[in-house]
Amino acid sequence: MTNGDYLFKQVYDYVLHRIERNEWQEEDKLPSVRKLAEEMNVHRLTVLKAYQLLKQQNRVYVKDKSGYFVQLNGRAKFENLDNPLISVYTQKNHLSEIHQVPVSYNFSQALIDPSLLPNLFLSDYVKKVFDLYPKVLATYSTVQGDVELREVLCEYFIDQYKTITTADNLLITTGSQQAIHLIAQAFVKSRDTILMEQPSYSAAIDTFRAQGATIVTVDIHADGYDLEQVEFMMKKYKPRLFYMNPTFHNPTGYTVPAAQRKQLVQLAEQYRCLLIEDDAYHDIYFDQAPPPPFYTYDTTGIVIYVKSFCKYISPGLRVAAVIAQSSIMKPLLVVKSLADNGSPLLNQKIFLHYFSSPRLQQHVEKLRIALQIRKEIMEEELAETDWHWTSPDGGLNLWIQLPNQKSTDEILPKSLKQSISFVPGRVCDPLNQLSSWVRLSYSYANEEQIRKGIRKFINLVDGNHETSSCDKVKET
Amino acid sequence: MTNGDYLFKQVYDYVLHRIERNEWQEEDKLPSVRKLAEEMNVHRLTVLKAYQLLKQQNRVYVKDKSGYFVQLNGRAKFENLDNPLISVYTQKNHLSEIHQVPVSYNFSQALIDPSLLPNLFLSDYVKKVFDLYPKVLATYSTVQGDVELREVLCEYFIDQYKTITTADNLLITTGSQQAIHLIAQAFVKSRDTILMEQPSYSAAIDTFRAQGATIVTVDIHADGYDLEQVEFMMKKYKPRLFYMNPTFHNPTGYTVPAAQRKQLVQLAEQYRCLLIEDDAYHDIYFDQAPPPPFYTYDTTGIVIYVKSFCKYISPGLRVAAVIAQSSIMKPLLVVKSLADNGSPLLNQKIFLHYFSSPRLQQHVEKLRIALQIRKEIMEEELAETDWHWTSPDGGLNLWIQLPNQKSTDEILPKSLKQSISFVPGRVCDPLNQLSSWVRLSYSYANEEQIRKGIRKFINLVDGNHETSSCDKVKET
Repeated sequence: MTNGDYLFKQVYDYVLHRIERNEWQEEDKLPSVRKLAEEMNVHRLTVLKAYQLLKQQNRVYVKDKSGYFVQLNGRAKFENLDNPLISVYTQKNHLSEIHQVPVSYNFSQALIDPSLLPNLFLSDYVKKVFDLYPKVLATYSTVQGDVELREVLCEYFIDQYKTITTADNLLITTGSQQAIHLIAQAFVKSRDTILMEQPSYSAAIDTFRAQGATIVTVDIHADGYDLEQVEFMMKKYKPRLFYMNPTFHNPTGYTVPAAQRKQLVQLAEQYRCLLIEDDAYHDIYFDQAPPPPFYTYDTTGIVIYVKSFCKYISPGLRVAAVIAQSSIMKPLLVVKSLADNGSPLLNQKIFLHYFSSPRLQQHVEKLRIALQIRKEIMEEELAETDWHWTSPDGGLNLWIQLPNQKSTDEILPKSLKQSISFVPGRVCDPLNQLSSWVRLSYSYANEEQIRKGIRKFINLVDGNHETSSCDKVKET
Repeated sequence: MTNGDYLFKQVYDYVLHRIERNEWQEEDKLPSVRKLAEEMNVHRLTVLKAYQLLKQQNRVYVKDKSGYFVQLNGRAKFENLDNPLISVYTQKNHLSEIHQVPVSYNFSQALIDPSLLPNLFLSDYVKKVFDLYPKVLATYSTVQGDVELREVLCEYFIDQYKTITTADNLLITTGSQQAIHLIAQAFVKSRDTILMEQPSYSAAIDTFRAQGATIVTVDIHADGYDLEQVEFMMKKYKPRLFYMNPTFHNPTGYTVPAAQRKQLVQLAEQYRCLLIEDDAYHDIYFDQAPPPPFYTYDTTGIVIYVKSFCKYISPGLRVAAVIAQSSIMKPLLVVKSLADNGSPLLNQKIFLHYFSSPRLQQHVEKLRIALQIRKEIMEEELAETDWHWTSPDGGLNLWIQLPNQKSTDEILPKSLKQSISFVPGRVCDPLNQLSSWVRLSYSYANEEQIRKGIRKFINLVDGNHETSSCDKVKET
């Protein structure tokens, strides 16, 4: 850690501990930024940063410019709505808000263009499912999911990763979003500390935050984690879990190397920190397959493995799987039963029949090529800029740093006006920093849209208004 | 309230307020039952009852027979699992546990026998959906649900109840279980008080309890609520919401009369208590349609209306709808996006096409007759007993009181051994009492299973072992 980081943590811990020991109580006013900076002999910005992080973690709140106050114990702040009768607890899904705006050049959705998906084949399987299971629409799935599907998935995982898992240790969820949500509900309560990567998957950040978690972070680099930093954080904060996305990481595209995987599992065991391995992009590689998942190194049941198939097979079916040992599976099943009593059976049966066919492998191979081409087109267009990124070996996104501390939050509304969407870096950051970064997905827009949209986007960020209108003329 | 109720509430409030004001702090030992009874000049049983309710509300816990202790603030108690590395928060789904045992005579599932459902017709619509929307499996639904379906449902509600609602005020969920779960997450945080009926729907009790709610109750009678009691509870406890199931109530089958509906909406407005109207059984009536829902009397947006279609159309599709005004809809959409990013599109489209066809009405009319016949068979068999129940005018259940304070908790394991399942009354009671009551569903077992199973069940409850083996001989 740098000296600045150290001072920041010192101030943050000082305030947090006073709140936690009830020395500063609910609704109490915190010392002013100036006063605390003098007291602790640090720069005012350091105090401000600590207060801002505490605010974002729902530990303090700001009242009408009169300063920072201790948040109500155990609960999020009420939001006043237009209905005077009702107040609700504040929860946010930042990504979902961005996606609500329809655009011509969609670089914000880390989804695959529907025309790259096996639609016709899937509809064949639907007919087959109705012939095989005439009462499929009249039947609930079990809470854990269709046993036939769970067995087929187990075979697949054994075949792929040479690790044995059983249908009892596998839960079917409605997409990986639900898997993350169930895990948050089973293992995280208000004020629990969890560990995430900086940056991380925006909807996961929002999910853990809505559950009231205090989030601390570790960095992720092109060559993986700094294991000393991970150990430092596990030791210091004793997080309940570490949510990680170690393979073609969202948003950066980085992959944690095999050598670190075994070591990190050992660290997690040592510090009793559950590892939540979100593995949505494993099969979307361009040259060579990534290392096997963390869960293959797990011998004690510290890893919960989340595998989404929605993205590259069928978003419309929403089938994902969670693998965990039985002591973890038990509470997850209770939460799943309360959440929706089990995913719809029809969807599981359709998925089962496609998944067991040789067409799956053919589809994935073609898809990898199509996505690599789109990635290369996007990078070709971006080559003329002085923006920075590491070319990913898989996944759906470019993670790009704009020069000169440009704020991507400020660029977003202008960009949406020009019908271009992207995800600003801050939304992917549990600490709400990284404001000069941007996530551009190359998987949803087609080749022509990527060329045109990226040109317009470069112009918007780098160019001035004159070139921007020139460009408009050129296009017509 | 009786004098006993009054003393109970006094003790309960006394203890709760001391905990809430931190006079008795986390992990502190509570006074012994004997001591507090002497101090407050009440019977020991009254104190015991108050402690037990607080325990069940996660406010106190019992440690190795050494007494009652104040629960950790804002969090459920950890449960120790077989994995020494992991501790999880305790959550329960009682109903789901009962349903895990496969039986020949299923009276515990308030579901409709699959052979009464329109399976063949639905599979026709599936083929239609694929012709109409070839990319349906490659497409995500919006978080709020398919707009075409939402519009059709709005027309249906306007047509049925003469109240105007718009697609913007309607959310599609994966079954009503998810709807209840989303509402709990948006509007209830740990320690919030909510109001429920005694008895109520078991999975709703478990859902609100898992969210950390403190549950207080009002009675429901064959002629509805005692509105004075409802007002007393709203005034005293200021509940965030009242979860109600006022039409062919689960488990009792009672319906709140039209005259009370308008008044209760006014009370809710006065005390700013959201009304959650769970209306799963509205269309399952035997003679005449029930009064219009509470939400038709709502002018200020205090009612959230939850309508499940799963049960009587297609459990395999899992389609339900929530109607709420926009200030309520906004936070629900955020929670829905975090929970699963929207229900699967395929299911919504299949449901849409069946729902818009005239076959729906024909199916529902036939279904009513089939269910009425099953109810009457069950009642015929039960007529020889001295058990008490009110014959329901709709819904799927009989709610029966056994004589002589017989404990249905104790009967359950014996009953499951004889391959007969039912729901013991205590599971339907937020206060964990009503142990001599039982819920028997007549909708899932067929006519022969009802006759045989109920005879065996009567024998088990009323008879002795000799008649039980006699009966077995007769059967073979």
